Amino acid sequence: MLLRLLESKAWNFGITFVILLNSALLGLNTFADIRQNYENFLNIADNICLLIFTVELLLRLLCYRFKFFTNEDRWWNIFDFIIVSVSILAVQYSVLRTLRILRILRIISSFQSMKLVVNAVIKTIPAMISITMLLSIFYYVYGVLCVEFFGKEFPEWFGNLPRALYTLFQIMTLESWSMGIVRPIMQVYPYAWILFISYIVIVGMITINLIVGVIVNSINEITQDKDADKEEYK
Amino acid sequence: MLLRLLESKAWNFGITFVILLNSALLGLNTFADIRQNYENFLNIADNICLLIFTVELLLRLLCYRFKFFTNEDRWWNIFDFIIVSVSILAVQYSVLRTLRILRILRIISSFQSMKLVVNAVIKTIPAMISITMLLSIFYYVYGVLCVEFFGKEFPEWFGNLPRALYTLFQIMTLESWSMGIVRPIMQVYPYAWILFISYIVIVGMITINLIVGVIVNSINEITQDKDADKEEYK
Amino acid sequence: MLLRLLESKAWNFGITFVILLNSALLGLNTFADIRQNYENFLNIADNICLLIFTVELLLRLLCYRFKFFTNEDRWWNIFDFIIVSVSILAVQYSVLRTLRILRILRIISSFQSMKLVVNAVIKTIPAMISITMLLSIFYYVYGVLCVEFFGKEFPEWFGNLPRALYTLFQIMTLESWSMGIVRPIMQVYPYAWILFISYIVIVGMITINLIVGVIVNSINEITQDKDADKEEYK
Amino acid sequence: MLLRLLESKAWNFGITFVILLNSALLGLNTFADIRQNYENFLNIADNICLLIFTVELLLRLLCYRFKFFTNEDRWWNIFDFIIVSVSILAVQYSVLRTLRILRILRIISSFQSMKLVVNAVIKTIPAMISITMLLSIFYYVYGVLCVEFFGKEFPEWFGNLPRALYTLFQIMTLESWSMGIVRPIMQVYPYAWILFISYIVIVGMITINLIVGVIVNSINEITQDKDADKEEYK
Repeated sequence: MLLRLLESKAWNFGITFVILLNSALLGLNTFADIRQNYENFLNIADNICLLIFTVELLLRLLCYRFKFFTNEDRWWNIFDFIIVSVSILAVQYSVLRTLRILRILRIISSFQSMKLVVNAVIKTIPAMISITMLLSIFYYVYGVLCVEFFGKEFPEWFGNLPRALYTLFQIMTLESWSMGIVRPIMQVYPYAWILFISYIVIVGMITINLIVGVIVNSINEITQDKDADKEEYK
Repeated sequence: MLLRLLESKAWNFGITFVILLNSALLGLNTFADIRQNYENFLNIADNICLLIFTVELLLRLLCYRFKFFTNEDRWWNIFDFIIVSVSILAVQYSVLRTLRILRILRIISSFQSMKLVVNAVIKTIPAMISITMLLSIFYYVYGVLCVEFFGKEFPEWFGNLPRALYTLFQIMTLESWSMGIVRPIMQVYPYAWILFISYIVIVGMITINLIVGVIVNSINEITQDKDADKEEYK
Repeated sequence: MLLRLLESKAWNFGITFVILLNSALLGLNTFADIRQNYENFLNIADNICLLIFTVELLLRLLCYRFKFFTNEDRWWNIFDFIIVSVSILAVQYSVLRTLRILRILRIISSFQSMKLVVNAVIKTIPAMISITMLLSIFYYVYGVLCVEFFGKEFPEWFGNLPRALYTLFQIMTLESWSMGIVRPIMQVYPYAWILFISYIVIVGMITINLIVGVIVNSINEITQDKDADKEEYK
Repeated sequence: MLLRLLESKAWNFGITFVILLNSALLGLNTFADIRQNYENFLNIADNICLLIFTVELLLRLLCYRFKFFTNEDRWWNIFDFIIVSVSILAVQYSVLRTLRILRILRIISSFQSMKLVVNAVIKTIPAMISITMLLSIFYYVYGVLCVEFFGKEFPEWFGNLPRALYTLFQIMTLESWSMGIVRPIMQVYPYAWILFISYIVIVGMITINLIVGVIVNSINEITQDKDADKEEYK
């Protein structure tokens, strides 16, 4: 009977409503004047929402027991479990206060269509892994090279490896790469453009391949599904 | 007979000509010196154009009657109806004056090929909705997080939620994200890059999936149409 | 016999060599010190190249006669004809001097593979036309709106229609749109973001559709070619 | 027996571990304080790694002999050979010191999946060559034109051909093209936008065609493979 309640549309709708309400409250909380005037009210409402989430999770745990961590929705259950656990801890330790914002992510697990989209996005990751690794190798090589070459003269950008990697990430997004970074460097090292333009070209080529890989993979999967359908049909 | 007139090529051509003329006049109106010297002429010409549009719309209403709001072109009819209505109101209330610029949009509804393109663009929206919603959730979470973390120190960028969302939209387009926003923040909070780079990576991945989704969807639709054609042919 | 000569590989190779040489000379001409020391030599070499081109074109004209403007390569013939004619005029009128740089474009018509690529690029244009027109309409509407709203306060960016269209083109490429343009405007008109963010979103959506259109079109054409091949094979 | 050892998983794992260790050491070397305190240790460790690579390469040479340069992995063997040779030279001549960073690239040749990705990326290059050449021609033409037109007034950006080509590469990536380059030029030459906007549009169109070409090519190859499979199956 409890199971029926938990899987009823009304229950689902209610929980989704509480999540959206909670998200809105967390948004209102960011306006300084609203926070000052209604601090108590917002805190109480926030805690009530958390209470509802906790009760809902406990009911689900009670109802599904082991299946909670083994059925096909197990990753989403674990996702909910972690978020609610962190939120409860956040009430006690003010250091974790900001983590209660993660509760907004429960919107994802409360909509069926959102879950499907996240699954689709995650399914494109394997097609990206090896090419992303290739990108990382070049990224690292250029990082080390930049520190060696420009570390002393431009400590703010290439002083050590983390800084160089941050700057190269910026250059990867093409943000102010020339006017902000490479032109000033070329005042000191006139041939610096060789390094940076080769970096941009390599990264650009790998990125194109990354996107093409994802597209070709998706098309491939769909045509395979179709072919399988046809075979079955015959 | 009126119907024949309305659906004749000459009539269509005439109306299209008036729309293009009106668009050109609205363009001329933006040059300060032309506006001052020929203000009266431009105003009269503008009102004549509006009169023609109104008469044309009334004729169409008279001719199609209920069908005006029910035939397959109904959305375009409603589109025209709203634009002309707003334009008439704009004559009386000077507050709405700038809205007469929307009349240029009637170019879309006067070309058959433009209508088809708009339909095609609108047809790609459903494939985008759920992934755009996923994007919005992350967007909102990061918005709230940024206000909490950086709101006090950088009120201009993250002072409240709308400002933070605007700044995050800017970062999404990669405009000055590092030199303009993240580097100054890292002077105060050295670990701010974790937040922003994770944001850029997540947004980038979701955007790639968005584009791939639209491409795969379009290809899928076309191959389905073809398969349907083949079936029919057999 | 002349025809055989003109279509021989050696002749083709020779002409291509002259074009590449001429392109290199035009490049050398841009270095101030080289230009000063070898001005006479460069000018003479340039004129010799032009002479060779002229002779080659005349031979082709003599040889193909009417076919020069009617065979399947006619567009490339006309292309060569215009470039050589302009170059000859450029010798006499120093105003047109810079136009001799266009001679470099003859590299395209001297390589078969370059011609094919240009044909392929041009073949994608029809698939773009109607969506580019849609883009232009929105572009124009926003241009007029921006002049009306921000023309007085920001004359440098939106003082008249051409300036507004230039600025909107810049925003379309996302260059400094926020830090450079929209944030300063928002100091005066706090709601300016509505206009600009709607513009970016609409332009972004139309651009995605443009790219998707080209991709789907290309794939479609290839599969059609294949199907045609299969039919023939059967 | 030696062959068996070289092709054993344990050996491969060991070498990969040494490469990763060496890459990490090269990374640590970039932190100024670590370098000062542990310089000797880092140098010795680096040399030990190099010794291991040299021994491994010599063993492989000894084992495969001529096949080292002729079997299907020959390009990767040559790749390893060059990197190790350069590293050995780098020990003696301090000018080449920074080149030992290239040793990190051996990560690529030590993972099978990385090799496949690199092969895939390289396989997309032929589809790009002719369109990249077309891009280069326009790039060169605009380079020469920019020097002729703007070289005198803006020597830093367009003083000679290399500078102009660098600046045009920057404009190709759309970085600060308007606020940083074209607007200042338009203060002097009001019609400069014609050149630069035509450049951006042409480059944009060619780039779209480049990406579409790669996508269509990849899809084409896969469907051909499938068709071949089907034929075989029949």
